[in-house]
Amino acid sequence: MNAPVRYRQLAAELAEAIDRGSLPAGARLPSVRACAAQHALSLNTVTAAYRLLEDRGLIEARPQSGYYVRSSLPALQRPLRARPSGVRASGELDELMSVVLQCQQREDHVDLALACPRGEMFYPGAKLARLTAALLRRQPQLVGRYALPPGSLRLRTQIARRAKLLGMDLAADDILLTHGAMEALQLALRAVTRAGDTVGIESPSYFNLYPLLASLGLRALEIPTHPQHGLALDALELLLEEKRLQAIVAMPTVHNPLGCSMPLAAKRRLAELVNRHRVPLIEDALYAELQFVEPLQPTVKAFDSEGWVMVCASYTKTLAPDYRIGWLEAGRFAETVRKLKFSSTVAESLLLGETVGAFLESGGYDHHMRALRRRYAAQVDAVRGLIARHFPAGTRATQPAGGFLLWLELPASVDSLALFHAALAERIVIIPGLLYSTGARYRHCLRLSCCYPLDERAGAALRRLGELACALAGSGAAD
Amino acid sequence: MNAPVRYRQLAAELAEAIDRGSLPAGARLPSVRACAAQHALSLNTVTAAYRLLEDRGLIEARPQSGYYVRSSLPALQRPLRARPSGVRASGELDELMSVVLQCQQREDHVDLALACPRGEMFYPGAKLARLTAALLRRQPQLVGRYALPPGSLRLRTQIARRAKLLGMDLAADDILLTHGAMEALQLALRAVTRAGDTVGIESPSYFNLYPLLASLGLRALEIPTHPQHGLALDALELLLEEKRLQAIVAMPTVHNPLGCSMPLAAKRRLAELVNRHRVPLIEDALYAELQFVEPLQPTVKAFDSEGWVMVCASYTKTLAPDYRIGWLEAGRFAETVRKLKFSSTVAESLLLGETVGAFLESGGYDHHMRALRRRYAAQVDAVRGLIARHFPAGTRATQPAGGFLLWLELPASVDSLALFHAALAERIVIIPGLLYSTGARYRHCLRLSCCYPLDERAGAALRRLGELACALAGSGAAD
Repeated sequence: MNAPVRYRQLAAELAEAIDRGSLPAGARLPSVRACAAQHALSLNTVTAAYRLLEDRGLIEARPQSGYYVRSSLPALQRPLRARPSGVRASGELDELMSVVLQCQQREDHVDLALACPRGEMFYPGAKLARLTAALLRRQPQLVGRYALPPGSLRLRTQIARRAKLLGMDLAADDILLTHGAMEALQLALRAVTRAGDTVGIESPSYFNLYPLLASLGLRALEIPTHPQHGLALDALELLLEEKRLQAIVAMPTVHNPLGCSMPLAAKRRLAELVNRHRVPLIEDALYAELQFVEPLQPTVKAFDSEGWVMVCASYTKTLAPDYRIGWLEAGRFAETVRKLKFSSTVAESLLLGETVGAFLESGGYDHHMRALRRRYAAQVDAVRGLIARHFPAGTRATQPAGGFLLWLELPASVDSLALFHAALAERIVIIPGLLYSTGARYRHCLRLSCCYPLDERAGAALRRLGELACALAGSGAAD
Repeated sequence: MNAPVRYRQLAAELAEAIDRGSLPAGARLPSVRACAAQHALSLNTVTAAYRLLEDRGLIEARPQSGYYVRSSLPALQRPLRARPSGVRASGELDELMSVVLQCQQREDHVDLALACPRGEMFYPGAKLARLTAALLRRQPQLVGRYALPPGSLRLRTQIARRAKLLGMDLAADDILLTHGAMEALQLALRAVTRAGDTVGIESPSYFNLYPLLASLGLRALEIPTHPQHGLALDALELLLEEKRLQAIVAMPTVHNPLGCSMPLAAKRRLAELVNRHRVPLIEDALYAELQFVEPLQPTVKAFDSEGWVMVCASYTKTLAPDYRIGWLEAGRFAETVRKLKFSSTVAESLLLGETVGAFLESGGYDHHMRALRRRYAAQVDAVRGLIARHFPAGTRATQPAGGFLLWLELPASVDSLALFHAALAERIVIIPGLLYSTGARYRHCLRLSCCYPLDERAGAALRRLGELACALAGSGAAD
């Protein structure tokens, strides 16, 4: 084996170690001398290998100190670029979403996209199963109780107690249990809008928000949203002054898909704005408990003064997705949403509510959440690492403040719809960026999730996705 | 004791025996001679007592045969009389409904009105509890499965199988699981209408339908509905010809609140009408499996030719109210409702769906339903008997073809809203008739349910309600 091959081989070995995480970001590499001795190579060969890794952005030299593994991927630090596509909003996007959902449910597909954590490691399933069974043994008559709103008091009491961790002072009686956060969003929107109204939303926003708004006859007005600081409040203020909005939907804490949280001062200003202009803000706090930092940053609702902030969340991402337990505190619209709930889906199961209430009482939830935050932070890091290695040079990704979602901006030449179809042909499911905008703005973007076991199969799928993206970009991977 | 007192006393004793059911409808009374001997009374006294009972409509003389206990209550056999009230539709009725619901949940109130069966006797709660616990033992990972539409295939297969008993040929794949029948109604309406559209409904209709329509910005157009034959099809045909309706909601099999089923020929004609005019019919089959006759009469969906009939039902009235398992087969709108479901409440619990699916597979359901039909038929009879005895003369009630609901037409002078308030002051909950119309038409009517144990407390409440109604009517009870 000649020298050029040897240095490339050493570089590949080291890249793989970084990839696997056995050389994590910030780790110091062995000195050139030590490495040469260890592998029985010349100093020149090792130096060449290190330089190659440096060129690829995987390691960096620090003066008087040696080589270190770099944090892996350039973060998205400037406003997102819009890149509208020729796709028309309604029908085609609808169709696309159906395909995504259908494939996601097939065992023979690898789902890298949907925000549905899978696997024993993410949920205390066995413990909740035992709690449910124990409740049924003691109170089999729960099955025959006719559920009426607002639902399990035990659970609502715990929701109010835990809301304090996010700075919110909520009363159990003002909390309405809903069928997941999705129903909470739906009821909140129906409570404060009529068909034809305009709703201000972040851009990008959660892909399922668009069909919801469309089905209610509401117009979505996208407001610029920074990948690190969230909603552009100056733009929002102008819209409020012009009375262009009848409601706002936002996710100011751990945004989906961007993963960002608004700075505290911005949250306070947002609460002031909506109270001053008397425009309801529907705050989706679905991922707020999955912030990577502790103590948790407060929500916008924490700064609400006159009840114009409606806040909702659920336990589907953190505890028991099958139980579909969501909730809504609708501020000054509490009475309206309660009535809407009754004439929409009536009520939630008392059995499932009591089960989750019992789990939250036990303290097991805090333990579980701490472990979950660490796990997701590590998973997000690992996936970012794989992207850094295998995606086209120029790819940028968000650096989420919590949760398990990544938003990728690919080089402008990559069409993520083409990437979606190419990946689907190999049974890999991603969500193309154009589903995150009414105007199909983000054709060069995509959302990935990190809420599955990062096993051989998932790793292979991520690498293959990178290769497909590189082919579309007409370039090689970053390394 | 003088003679006039003695004959009244004897009449009261006999009335009580009829009341208790020890002298059931159709039973022959002892001959005047035998009765006189038995009670050591004169023939004249007995004759006077029998005449009094005859005058009160409790017994009838048959020539050459003697006296017989009459079937108890005049049936509602002619079109309902409208009696509009001064109550304005939206706000005040809304408020009224809130009061009904709040009181219904209080242990210290007797609920004679809501269609929420209560008590061990109406549900196989213990068996379902055991099934749920067994499923959780074998598959605790169900808790951690992310529910996605259309939901449990096992349950959908059973729903399709059982639909055949109602003459419907449905495919499991076309059935969408919903959060009770209420969500099915809601999704069906949203799939085929826009705000401002007009929806044809029966008059009276299920009280929760009105706020649902209002919340979607839909106008309700009430179509005359006969208390024995249902929807007036000639009136409907005219509206369809004039293109006045964008959709129809109807309950042609065991109507709520009237309890009637349309004749088969009328159902066939209704199916033809909506297919010919291409106007979606949303058929609420919630009580169809609770028909008192077997084999069960088919639904309108059974006669659907081009998919313009959307049919929905649930297991909340017959099996497991807490599990809130409903379903919708939306005919040609199947794809639309599936998407709406995903962007409204996402999906239903797999655990609860699999449990009910397992129960339906077991055959225990057929046994349970047969017992339930007999029980409700007996309960309805018993409550009709109490009404006959204790409500004002001139009161009429429906003779339901199934289910457990009664619709009462009181003498025109009785204001059921006043009755509602008088009863509520004594912690008895009823639903005044004006909640069953947009125009507050049925002010002299009320709905009662018969889905609670007919114990001392319930009997006393029904008798007291009769007294209050008599006081408002300014007359005595029928007997």
